[in-house]
Amino acid sequence: MLSETGTGALAPAATAVFTAVLTEGPLSRVSLANRLGLSSAAVTKAARPLIEAGYLQELAATERTGPGAGRPASPLAICPDREYFVGVKITADELIGVVCDLSADVRVAAHRPLADPGVDAVLTELGRLIDDLLDGPGDYRARTRRLGLAVSGDVDRGTGLVRYSPFLRWHDVPLRERAARITGLAVTVENDVKALTTAEHWFGEGVGAESFALITVGTGIGCGLVVNGRLVSGSHGVAGEIGHIGVDATGPDCHCGSRGCVEAIAGTDAIVSQARACTGKPGLTIDDAVALARGGDERVAAVFARGGTAIGTGIAAVANLVGPARIVVSGEGLAAYDLFETHIRTGFERQAFGAAVQCPLSIRPLPFEEWARGAAAVSIQSLVAP
Amino acid sequence: MLSETGTGALAPAATAVFTAVLTEGPLSRVSLANRLGLSSAAVTKAARPLIEAGYLQELAATERTGPGAGRPASPLAICPDREYFVGVKITADELIGVVCDLSADVRVAAHRPLADPGVDAVLTELGRLIDDLLDGPGDYRARTRRLGLAVSGDVDRGTGLVRYSPFLRWHDVPLRERAARITGLAVTVENDVKALTTAEHWFGEGVGAESFALITVGTGIGCGLVVNGRLVSGSHGVAGEIGHIGVDATGPDCHCGSRGCVEAIAGTDAIVSQARACTGKPGLTIDDAVALARGGDERVAAVFARGGTAIGTGIAAVANLVGPARIVVSGEGLAAYDLFETHIRTGFERQAFGAAVQCPLSIRPLPFEEWARGAAAVSIQSLVAP
Repeated sequence: MLSETGTGALAPAATAVFTAVLTEGPLSRVSLANRLGLSSAAVTKAARPLIEAGYLQELAATERTGPGAGRPASPLAICPDREYFVGVKITADELIGVVCDLSADVRVAAHRPLADPGVDAVLTELGRLIDDLLDGPGDYRARTRRLGLAVSGDVDRGTGLVRYSPFLRWHDVPLRERAARITGLAVTVENDVKALTTAEHWFGEGVGAESFALITVGTGIGCGLVVNGRLVSGSHGVAGEIGHIGVDATGPDCHCGSRGCVEAIAGTDAIVSQARACTGKPGLTIDDAVALARGGDERVAAVFARGGTAIGTGIAAVANLVGPARIVVSGEGLAAYDLFETHIRTGFERQAFGAAVQCPLSIRPLPFEEWARGAAAVSIQSLVAP
Repeated sequence: MLSETGTGALAPAATAVFTAVLTEGPLSRVSLANRLGLSSAAVTKAARPLIEAGYLQELAATERTGPGAGRPASPLAICPDREYFVGVKITADELIGVVCDLSADVRVAAHRPLADPGVDAVLTELGRLIDDLLDGPGDYRARTRRLGLAVSGDVDRGTGLVRYSPFLRWHDVPLRERAARITGLAVTVENDVKALTTAEHWFGEGVGAESFALITVGTGIGCGLVVNGRLVSGSHGVAGEIGHIGVDATGPDCHCGSRGCVEAIAGTDAIVSQARACTGKPGLTIDDAVALARGGDERVAAVFARGGTAIGTGIAAVANLVGPARIVVSGEGLAAYDLFETHIRTGFERQAFGAAVQCPLSIRPLPFEEWARGAAAVSIQSLVAP
């Protein structure tokens, strides 16, 4: 991977060193050796080609920590500007793109509306968006070789195939191949929730956690899970479907064919339809519902409360079953954060079993470019640990 | 671990070879090399001390599979009688014990009633049970060095401490140390559901699965999970608590402080109390309830149906979240298998999301010594992969 053509492969020890410095660095060689179970000599050998290729650097030596502490340590750190990565989230009505550096810091962001979610139209707009991102100020083009794409639905990262994306109405689209042809970049395609989970696991609140969950709240309610240090994929292609846990045996019907699902109570469409029903206003939008609840309409506030409680009950199921070290709750639905938060926490605390209640919940809105940053994080991951 | 004192340690490659042959053998060296990512020479080197110590054997060479297939393969297999392992499940009213061979086949089983679940009384009876098992016919004593103990509740396998076992009313009991002193054996202590899951993962329906779930139905409703190849422990000490997933927002109160939990609807106590309520017979037992339902009492049959549906909804939550390759449903509650099975399946199929419904469910009663075999399996695991 270190060659300019992007075809070289790293030895396992080099991948381990690169990953550790990227996600938890700067780290001294001694500290790397300890945490990776390698000898100091093996760390030095693994790091050498990464330093030579400009991905890693030695920081200035830090002070000795005590008598007999040996040579002062020169921690290894990432060179963030060595390479840039484009990440794009594809939604049915817009493309959101970012350029990130190797530390997954966003350097520039842009978006383009989509008139047509058909594959051809999306690819044309994707090419334009990438030109906008790479040819603007910052001169990112020369050091950008990789693109990550995040799509909702059933995505096979291994083959780059979008098997089914309901919102885009795509079936069996070989997105990796087609996007590579249009852009000339090496493309990685991933499910959007998994991409966001990867970003949190490598560069966010999940760093260093053996287990970690990210819950996204919006039109869909999804969940990315890291267990035993790795993303959970699901043996039958399904995992993280917290939106379709049944939490209310007598609850509303869900589009999935079941009833009382978290998403049927707390998804954006469910919130809107309940708010329309209780106000008698058939044209009401999600923004109207938020405004009414914030303005003191108790009926609509109760709709958000019920939704928050259902989400909290679903999150407790995650905590009771897999016991993540921490859980982040985010997504565009948390623009109504103030209406949901208390009820998410109450629902979680009521249903969490015993010590599971100790699992820290971070509940926060999601900046719009965060999904695109997730796509870029997956692209960085493809460089480091293909 | 190969020395007679049980203190030696295996190299990682030897552990990998031993584990693969034990759980999936007999296997040829070539096949071992392929699946473990080792060279054939490394496999041969790793296997040699295991063969010399009598744990592995070379089977007679099998036929060539075709022209140019090279030397005929001599698959490696376990020597089941090389060493025996005692497994004991400790419940509040009896000890159930088995002697297993290295393949986790039960060679002899025994149980002793407990008049008193206090730690001292249990340890005295444990000593007697082990004498019964090892000094009877079969002459197991000479080749038995290890004991596995399975206890319900919060158990720290690493330290051998039983932090809290509600049914036994034990708090912070250093069970490993105390049992080792009484028995002279090397002791491993594990939570009972995790022990049973280990037995299925290493020697049962979970062999070879990257992910796998075992659901136990009885007084408690528990779940052991293997995800990404390893047992899930829970960062805050809680995992697999399927019994406390909330599946009915308006359901009955649970002893855990929440409401509508699977266990509050389908646990043995819940079944009994609902059957008492609907029949108006306050002295009715679980056996009475089973007899009534089997005899055609529709009210009591409906109690089991509701229970089965709740269990199926909980199982669907497991499938939707972590997507196990397969799920086994068992436990003493499945003595009423005929009353539960259809409803478990219906509940699961209704709530499983998309392809998650493809996850195979094995629903079967559990022979009484199976829990003890789980304890023995954990002891075997401690020999092979400490």
